[in-house]
Amino acid sequence: MENILSVKEQAHAAYTASHQLSTISTEEKNKALLEMADALEHRCNLILAENQIDLTNGRKKNLTASTLDRLMLNEERIKQIADGLRQIVSLPDPIGSGISEFRRPNGLDIRAIRVPLGVVGVIYEARPNVTADVIGLCIKSGNAIVLRGGSEAIHTNKIISSMLAAAAYTAGIPAGSIQFIETQDRQAVADMLKLRQYIDVIIPRGGKGLINYVIENSTIPVIETGAGVCHAYVDSSANMEMAGNIIINAKTSRPAVCNTIETLLINKAIAETFVPFIIDKLQAANVTIKGCPQVKALCPNIEDAVEADWSTEYHDLVISLKIVDTLDDAITHINTYNTKHSEVIITENYQNARIFQQKVDAAAVYVNASTRFTDGFEFGFGAEIGISTQKLHARGPMGLTALTTMKYLIDGNGQIR
Amino acid sequence: MENILSVKEQAHAAYTASHQLSTISTEEKNKALLEMADALEHRCNLILAENQIDLTNGRKKNLTASTLDRLMLNEERIKQIADGLRQIVSLPDPIGSGISEFRRPNGLDIRAIRVPLGVVGVIYEARPNVTADVIGLCIKSGNAIVLRGGSEAIHTNKIISSMLAAAAYTAGIPAGSIQFIETQDRQAVADMLKLRQYIDVIIPRGGKGLINYVIENSTIPVIETGAGVCHAYVDSSANMEMAGNIIINAKTSRPAVCNTIETLLINKAIAETFVPFIIDKLQAANVTIKGCPQVKALCPNIEDAVEADWSTEYHDLVISLKIVDTLDDAITHINTYNTKHSEVIITENYQNARIFQQKVDAAAVYVNASTRFTDGFEFGFGAEIGISTQKLHARGPMGLTALTTMKYLIDGNGQIR
Repeated sequence: MENILSVKEQAHAAYTASHQLSTISTEEKNKALLEMADALEHRCNLILAENQIDLTNGRKKNLTASTLDRLMLNEERIKQIADGLRQIVSLPDPIGSGISEFRRPNGLDIRAIRVPLGVVGVIYEARPNVTADVIGLCIKSGNAIVLRGGSEAIHTNKIISSMLAAAAYTAGIPAGSIQFIETQDRQAVADMLKLRQYIDVIIPRGGKGLINYVIENSTIPVIETGAGVCHAYVDSSANMEMAGNIIINAKTSRPAVCNTIETLLINKAIAETFVPFIIDKLQAANVTIKGCPQVKALCPNIEDAVEADWSTEYHDLVISLKIVDTLDDAITHINTYNTKHSEVIITENYQNARIFQQKVDAAAVYVNASTRFTDGFEFGFGAEIGISTQKLHARGPMGLTALTTMKYLIDGNGQIR
Repeated sequence: MENILSVKEQAHAAYTASHQLSTISTEEKNKALLEMADALEHRCNLILAENQIDLTNGRKKNLTASTLDRLMLNEERIKQIADGLRQIVSLPDPIGSGISEFRRPNGLDIRAIRVPLGVVGVIYEARPNVTADVIGLCIKSGNAIVLRGGSEAIHTNKIISSMLAAAAYTAGIPAGSIQFIETQDRQAVADMLKLRQYIDVIIPRGGKGLINYVIENSTIPVIETGAGVCHAYVDSSANMEMAGNIIINAKTSRPAVCNTIETLLINKAIAETFVPFIIDKLQAANVTIKGCPQVKALCPNIEDAVEADWSTEYHDLVISLKIVDTLDDAITHINTYNTKHSEVIITENYQNARIFQQKVDAAAVYVNASTRFTDGFEFGFGAEIGISTQKLHARGPMGLTALTTMKYLIDGNGQIR
């Protein structure tokens, strides 16, 4: 048994490091990121050996083929992870940049500038690439980090994080800035979620169960990410070809991710022609279709959609269809069942486009484009730390600025009140 | 016994109203605020009658004179509350304003715009003016509101909120937008803190006990406000007169509020002259002084500062003094004991000013000015919903924009990924 630090000691070390890390220059941070990327590539074999242990354990535990695939690394994938760190170098450093600056009538000069949050806690499930992504984004934004990964990838995550921590330290990043919690004891997560004095934010990345556990148990502020029950609404004036292309793309291009659509709402005025048209297309793409009674009346050879379907994120080639009477009914359905992630209307009607964008409550509201674009890279933000589905602090794809807060600097010459 | 709605029903009503309220125009919101202000003045006597009940109960409960004074309303104070609502009319409406706008290479146009948070929950203690302030700021920013006030002011808060709700409704604000929880059952607060599906943020305004209870029990995101253990550090190069004026102002102008200083750190190089100088001034202003052993060696006729003093917010004419060896020691002391509210260095040394502003972790870091300026009005933001002492979402004085989030609107012509 190794002699490992307690979660509290690790968080305290990160907290101590964060005060120094917040003042490190962009040049130093970039240099460290490049050396961290090199370290992963140079010692690629060590990572692959640890990854083999996780894969062997995973097969014993009968993990699904897709989970094993997400877990599996090879030389090319490690190069991709290293390149991800190099891409972070090219992103602008938000730290120290001005948000606003003004002079008060009494002569006080007030500046609001961006500063790091301090210590970022991330609790995540299987994917090893998250380890490097999150460490890279935190270092670039001057934040210390406490990571807790899932048991499936524990050996891989451990070697990646310790390699990155060592390379960062050698490159001048304060010792203790990168903390990986090694114990698989579940109590470690419960402990971590109460360390409000050391950790400034918790970002859970994983399934609904993990996210809800974190929300219910954390006294540290949480940024909720990832749950996506997204909708497409086909308005009566929609261009049918365009609607078909968008729906097939938004449902089938990567069905397991959060920005795919789960429910398709169709205006009754075009249902008679559109429903058979889209069902043909979806079936040709191997999508299982569930329908409300009105949809089934038009196409009986599909499954029944039940109440639970409207709030289900399938993570799979499954979609539920519903016919609605009006645009307002579509908006009400969406605001009732959505996770406030991404929503799209397909329409040629200007007023309806505008009303949909105003009234639908979601991070990203589209007109005539696939919801699959809700993504840090697609928005042009570079790497992302996650997609926020809550309203506080950050909403939608979170780039580096989501890992910052601000501070007012006030300069005077003796002003009193 | 009245037939009152459950907390859940009230929060649901606010949630339903919030969808309509989010699209109300600035003109309509301003008209409502003016009518709400008039309602308070026109029916002033009704408020005073209810206020008398609270005051009578308060005297029976032996509330302190200062608590009774904060609770007490008269015609002039009601006029001030009404004028507060009128001032909110003159603040710019943040809703709908653009944050950024860009075109992606694939032709997608992406706009980030400000939208209301949705439903704001406020849990507060005695002061009745908070009721009107908070309702006014929420209505102006398009948010529905669920209020839970303290028992001391229950009759006053109930009449003010019901008058404002009635006037708002008459002026076209959606029914249900303003919810005041009338029951004094403590379970109501516990219930409120779990209504994540309806309430977007909880802002506690009150003492440490209330704030900690909310943080520990809420599954809704919380904005922490108000705790203030603030410091002044007198550098070796400080202008002594200026330091004296700032310290006296920051300690004595309103000792009960959060932006006063609680601890004074003095560089040892000037301690011999500065300590007697400032102790004279503080004693002349009736301030009780506690000192570290080095301070006591210079001026024995003061109390001992013990470990607990360094993290105590006195809310009173009390200050603790400590001599530090270096600027770095001062910064370390501050970052160890502060509540990340407001901190000041008094110095004539450019480098030291810069280092202090960079390294001290607080919402507002001053050079040569009183910490008492950390306030929405003093910063020029107009009325404030509170002063955030956390790092997520909002930091420092929170004006109307702290009550907003953003939404991406994406316009395309059939883009798929």
